[in-house]
Amino acid sequence: MIATGASPIIPDLPGFDLPGVLALKTLEDGRKIKQFIHDQNVKKAIIIGMGYIALEMCEALHDRDIGVEMVKPRPVLLPWMHEKLADMVKEEIASNGINMHLGHEVKEIEKTHKGLKVVCSDLVLEGQMVLVAIGVIPNSQLAEQAGLGLGPQKAIAVDRSLLTSDPHIYAAGDCADAFHVVTEQRTWIPLALRANRAGWAVADNVTGKNAELQGVAGTAVFKVLGLEVARTGLSVEEAEKFGFEPVEMMIQARTRAHRHPGASSIGVQMVADRKSGRLLGAQLVGREGVAHRVNAPAVALHARFTLEEFSQSDLAYAPPFGPTWDPMLTAANQLLKSL
Amino acid sequence: MIATGASPIIPDLPGFDLPGVLALKTLEDGRKIKQFIHDQNVKKAIIIGMGYIALEMCEALHDRDIGVEMVKPRPVLLPWMHEKLADMVKEEIASNGINMHLGHEVKEIEKTHKGLKVVCSDLVLEGQMVLVAIGVIPNSQLAEQAGLGLGPQKAIAVDRSLLTSDPHIYAAGDCADAFHVVTEQRTWIPLALRANRAGWAVADNVTGKNAELQGVAGTAVFKVLGLEVARTGLSVEEAEKFGFEPVEMMIQARTRAHRHPGASSIGVQMVADRKSGRLLGAQLVGREGVAHRVNAPAVALHARFTLEEFSQSDLAYAPPFGPTWDPMLTAANQLLKSL
Repeated sequence: MIATGASPIIPDLPGFDLPGVLALKTLEDGRKIKQFIHDQNVKKAIIIGMGYIALEMCEALHDRDIGVEMVKPRPVLLPWMHEKLADMVKEEIASNGINMHLGHEVKEIEKTHKGLKVVCSDLVLEGQMVLVAIGVIPNSQLAEQAGLGLGPQKAIAVDRSLLTSDPHIYAAGDCADAFHVVTEQRTWIPLALRANRAGWAVADNVTGKNAELQGVAGTAVFKVLGLEVARTGLSVEEAEKFGFEPVEMMIQARTRAHRHPGASSIGVQMVADRKSGRLLGAQLVGREGVAHRVNAPAVALHARFTLEEFSQSDLAYAPPFGPTWDPMLTAANQLLKSL
Repeated sequence: MIATGASPIIPDLPGFDLPGVLALKTLEDGRKIKQFIHDQNVKKAIIIGMGYIALEMCEALHDRDIGVEMVKPRPVLLPWMHEKLADMVKEEIASNGINMHLGHEVKEIEKTHKGLKVVCSDLVLEGQMVLVAIGVIPNSQLAEQAGLGLGPQKAIAVDRSLLTSDPHIYAAGDCADAFHVVTEQRTWIPLALRANRAGWAVADNVTGKNAELQGVAGTAVFKVLGLEVARTGLSVEEAEKFGFEPVEMMIQARTRAHRHPGASSIGVQMVADRKSGRLLGAQLVGREGVAHRVNAPAVALHARFTLEEFSQSDLAYAPPFGPTWDPMLTAANQLLKSL
């Protein structure tokens, strides 16, 4: 069984090997970062990248009163996300005094007398620590050298039993791929639940229990400052890539019943396929009730529900927890009109 | 179209017509209660009944510093609920200084010089206001007199198009029944979402849109003091009644990842059918993350998922919102072992 995980991408550019240029993947990495912050009395950090890990670390550092600047080459924050939802995230980060520098390609990192300097062609950021959080790659070198089949992003290709192309070798965890329940194609979405579940399934299979995993819906959630951000299924762009005819809807609703104290705004985007009527995905941003709300459409994706079927779900209602029509249903009802 | 709603059950016993004996159904009822509390400077109230409304009102009155005593004839709190989950609710109420008198049949209400007296055979409770919250009945008299077919609890029987037994008459709202997606039999679960949805569906049908409703899963949630309490689908008793062979599991898990600050305990009960392997229902109690968590199994009930299928759902994970295996999945995995 190959369970080699994934590794953070470290660009092959000058200065990325300097002390104080760190990445977060393992528990040991986390300890190193804490130690460095403590030893160097870090007051200012630069994060390269703006994905889940980058955003979670921006919050963690901000909570320790460390000034944070973020930089990335692409001009769009969370490119898979509906623009208005991404704007909610952007505003939350900006309103906490964190600078996001989008659209700046990092050329190198230099040592200065006070710390480190991240150099882009048109921007220089200075700090005492640089966190590199631009993504991960599967540790599939061993598998590749052994001649095993590879899937998307060179993750180790496995079937529903977690077998690789060699019937005597299993693979599980962030190094292995999975089937996507919406596209039914191979995908590589290295997240904790699937990694964990695949490990258990291999254990079942080697002990003769015959476990088969249906696949992933790409459900994910993260918290950044006061916001919860979640997604499941496909974005419009992904849906197009897999031959669907996606139609999307973005709504703003409330997290609790009309006039209930503590209610706040929740943004929901939903995507369905015009041809088949199938629900394809959903994205949510809000201050509460996002993390678990995404699981209703996630289960609907496993069920291959049409949008119409999902829109009929009997979801829980009580005033402290949502409007009579849950925002997921409001999004579905609105999207149905444009299908 | 008949949309006559439901009415609170008021027992035909002496004293239930006294001033200060109130029920809560309409907005007007709510205003009356508030006015009475204000006018009479109510410091002590007695609630007859311990269902959703009774428990929500116990919290509302408690928040206004009104002493509350609750009484009901049956000896079991929330009889549809797993005993250990019901105990969590009981403890929460007791720890807030609210007395629950279970197993006391109310004989009458009497006027005293200070207020009102609820008289049971072996107990007398005194207060200034009595709230009667022992349930509702459908307002189906008109339909019955017109000779329309009635369903469970004499709710007006409607088909999936919301048509009554007379093809020229629709019914919707708390007066009408629904199909249950698990049992596929008629049921009467008067809750806001279904009532609202049925109203819209009738509007669609009379304007030529041909709306059909799949039915309800019996998903419900309420908040009482610091607890969220939710259910979907069938209890063990209900499952037996409808010919299933129910197996249940009750687990305790955490609302957030291991050692994440703010985590608390969440109790989950899950029921599946031994013969078909189908997921039949779930119940949850906890301080956070209950209200929306119940929607994942609710959608799975609509999908007629087996427990095994539900257990493979790709639910969202991040440390602030749950363990890697969501408590719903842990419950499913544990229950699978006894199936």
